[in-house]
Amino acid sequence: MQSSQVLNKKDYILESTLRLAEFLVNTLSEKIPELALLAVRNAFTDCIGGSIPGSRTESAQIMIRFVQESKSSGDAGVIGANFRCHSTLAALANGVSAHALDYDDLIRPLGHASAVLVPVGLAMGEELGLPGRKILEAYVLAVEVGAKLGACLSPDHGDKGWHSTSTLGAITGAAMASRLLNLDMDQTCSALALAVSQAAGIRLNFGYMAKPFQAGNAARGGVTAALLAQKGFSGNPEIFEGPLGFCSLYGGRPEDLDQAIERLGAPFHLAVSEIQFKRYPCCGGGQQILDALLLDILPNVSVKVEEVSQVEVSVPAFSFGQAMFHRRPKTGLQGKFSSEYCVAAALIDGKIRLATFTDEAVLRPAAQEFLEKVSVAPHEGEGQDDYSEVTLKLRDGSRHTARVEHAQGSLIKPLTREQAEQKFRDCASTVLSEKKVAESIALITRLDEANDITSLLEGLRVPDRF
Amino acid sequence: MQSSQVLNKKDYILESTLRLAEFLVNTLSEKIPELALLAVRNAFTDCIGGSIPGSRTESAQIMIRFVQESKSSGDAGVIGANFRCHSTLAALANGVSAHALDYDDLIRPLGHASAVLVPVGLAMGEELGLPGRKILEAYVLAVEVGAKLGACLSPDHGDKGWHSTSTLGAITGAAMASRLLNLDMDQTCSALALAVSQAAGIRLNFGYMAKPFQAGNAARGGVTAALLAQKGFSGNPEIFEGPLGFCSLYGGRPEDLDQAIERLGAPFHLAVSEIQFKRYPCCGGGQQILDALLLDILPNVSVKVEEVSQVEVSVPAFSFGQAMFHRRPKTGLQGKFSSEYCVAAALIDGKIRLATFTDEAVLRPAAQEFLEKVSVAPHEGEGQDDYSEVTLKLRDGSRHTARVEHAQGSLIKPLTREQAEQKFRDCASTVLSEKKVAESIALITRLDEANDITSLLEGLRVPDRF
Repeated sequence: MQSSQVLNKKDYILESTLRLAEFLVNTLSEKIPELALLAVRNAFTDCIGGSIPGSRTESAQIMIRFVQESKSSGDAGVIGANFRCHSTLAALANGVSAHALDYDDLIRPLGHASAVLVPVGLAMGEELGLPGRKILEAYVLAVEVGAKLGACLSPDHGDKGWHSTSTLGAITGAAMASRLLNLDMDQTCSALALAVSQAAGIRLNFGYMAKPFQAGNAARGGVTAALLAQKGFSGNPEIFEGPLGFCSLYGGRPEDLDQAIERLGAPFHLAVSEIQFKRYPCCGGGQQILDALLLDILPNVSVKVEEVSQVEVSVPAFSFGQAMFHRRPKTGLQGKFSSEYCVAAALIDGKIRLATFTDEAVLRPAAQEFLEKVSVAPHEGEGQDDYSEVTLKLRDGSRHTARVEHAQGSLIKPLTREQAEQKFRDCASTVLSEKKVAESIALITRLDEANDITSLLEGLRVPDRF
Repeated sequence: MQSSQVLNKKDYILESTLRLAEFLVNTLSEKIPELALLAVRNAFTDCIGGSIPGSRTESAQIMIRFVQESKSSGDAGVIGANFRCHSTLAALANGVSAHALDYDDLIRPLGHASAVLVPVGLAMGEELGLPGRKILEAYVLAVEVGAKLGACLSPDHGDKGWHSTSTLGAITGAAMASRLLNLDMDQTCSALALAVSQAAGIRLNFGYMAKPFQAGNAARGGVTAALLAQKGFSGNPEIFEGPLGFCSLYGGRPEDLDQAIERLGAPFHLAVSEIQFKRYPCCGGGQQILDALLLDILPNVSVKVEEVSQVEVSVPAFSFGQAMFHRRPKTGLQGKFSSEYCVAAALIDGKIRLATFTDEAVLRPAAQEFLEKVSVAPHEGEGQDDYSEVTLKLRDGSRHTARVEHAQGSLIKPLTREQAEQKFRDCASTVLSEKKVAESIALITRLDEANDITSLLEGLRVPDRF
């Protein structure tokens, strides 16, 4: 019976929440792998880069205005605006900017980890005047905690409809903020429990402003949890384990938690599984499809769009049903979650840019008409094979097929340093002057050397344009 | 297959989210039953009363300080403090104060609806200078929306470990705030979707400060959702229905939603099922037990505590496992969720008061020792019979048993007006002068006549005492 299980705490051998807290509190700086810190520095560059044009989207502009209207004062800056405020509110606004374009990185099984953790790091770092390296280290530890929890949830969690970026995000955000605040064991346990109190986010909001809100809300939730715990606000120090705990409640297997926790930092998740950066500003499910078209098919076949009679796309079932599920998109945001539109835009324009995902671009008749020519289906069978296959059928009867398993920017094919810096420049130059772009990139790529990040982002706090 | 179900929208006949929004937007003031409005006026009195000593608890004091440190300015007042701030932050602080003592009302299947909705009503009402009647009406409509959603979740939702006060609370909070802001259909749908993005709260946090946080966070979430939607922030207008929607994701049956929505306002939930007010400042699961002891057994048997050899308590399985689950409480908050301690305190003190649930009271040796004499068990069998039975065994071999199904303050045995006003006076006098108590009660019980509630609560914004 469920209720008696609550009593028999010793059904689970380890005190999982305590062990996670202990790891966050006691892991020495020198135990954190340099390789992981390097990856995180790249994540900060990528995420801050994407946040700059992200701050100009409608969702971020509304959120910045909302935060501004709370008339809060504090030391945390808002990217793309010209005011500072309380760290919780800066984390909220910057989280929305980071995720608004869906151009930000992925860390499995967490989702868009940087969209939550970079805003948390910036907000706490500016509020407390922290050194860059401490922020990078806290990011690595937070991902470690989240990855172990995520291993107990995945893939059930996403399949059921949760948005792991925000559910696990609130927890990783609290983990990171706890480390940055040097919380003790009791406080860290409470911070994690208060993060669980705020762990929400639903995939059905993909394609709406509510999706980046979910990232920003997780960042705000993480900071809130840690600040409250620092003041003595209490939560259950056994929040993850057992039949009523987080891992069970959010569609996972709490019985896997003990084993996962034994592997905390051994090895570090970020030392063995890299961060996936995106080449195209749309859902992760679109990256393989677009590489197949833009890198494999089109450079080898001279195709005019009017010669295309049909495009057949086969994608993983999860992407089809829970990620890229907008079959007939009507807004720029929905276009980011539409395999059909990504194919249409790639063929019509020959490339995918930020401007591909405006409402106007999605609604143009050429694109809307082309949607009818694209048929997308999940791979047959029960397998969760992670590849996409695109077949182009031309009026002359010819067929051109490409299958992509590892998109550019993924684990196997990481972006080069030049590609990463070019992405930053492309993003930042939509808002900042050439001089400011160069200054920003120089500063951000040396984040680990900064003794105090307070002034680091001064250049990103440009006047808003409501 | 799950993914194809996403496509076949017409699997569900009604557009459930749209219908809920339509109800919130279009229900005419004169269609709202006077009986429901009367009940809600009592809920405001009860909830504001409990919020006054609630604001003096450690959890509320920490939260008030946290809100104060965000240095936000605005027109919404914080009960038990002497500052105003943005409506989202006032809702957060007042939600914690409302729920901190667990003395606030219950509306099945929503949970502690007033701990969320009263703070939302006060915050928006003060920010916008709204008349009292508009606030009461919005409360009735919000409960109606939440009750229909809750009918699709209950009892799975709580059994799995969710805290409906905060999960459904974020949604009812957004529903209420949407009505108060006169949002249109599109905006209301978005507000509801943004509330789902924030719908969290776990029962394992019962007995910790995180529990009242979950109420305050839901209130903040509801106000946030509606304010963002007012500015054009978008969410999925089909957020509740389907296999990936709210009703399914949070442990319910989306197929019941169509039928529930057909019954919106026909009749109104609050016209047929009353609000349960609490006689004792502890978990709802303790009310029957304490009535059995304090009203049925002790007045009829002269018992000295040292004569008691054992107390056997039989409670609903749900209460045993998911609500009153602290078998050996160590803090005042845990004592509120412990059948064992409630029995011990009632026998030792002969009464249950606010002071029963301090850390000191729970930790006193007499109480801790007595816990060993109390054995609590869930009713046998699979039934969810909602009664509690207490058997007192004395050293002389005699046994005294009482069974209570309807506690005082429950549907069948409502508190009289005198009892309700006495409860307000008991609560408020812990903080306010006799004169202020009298003034407050006079104002609050005429809430429906106030043309603008702005000045109504001026008397409750007393200096804090950090």
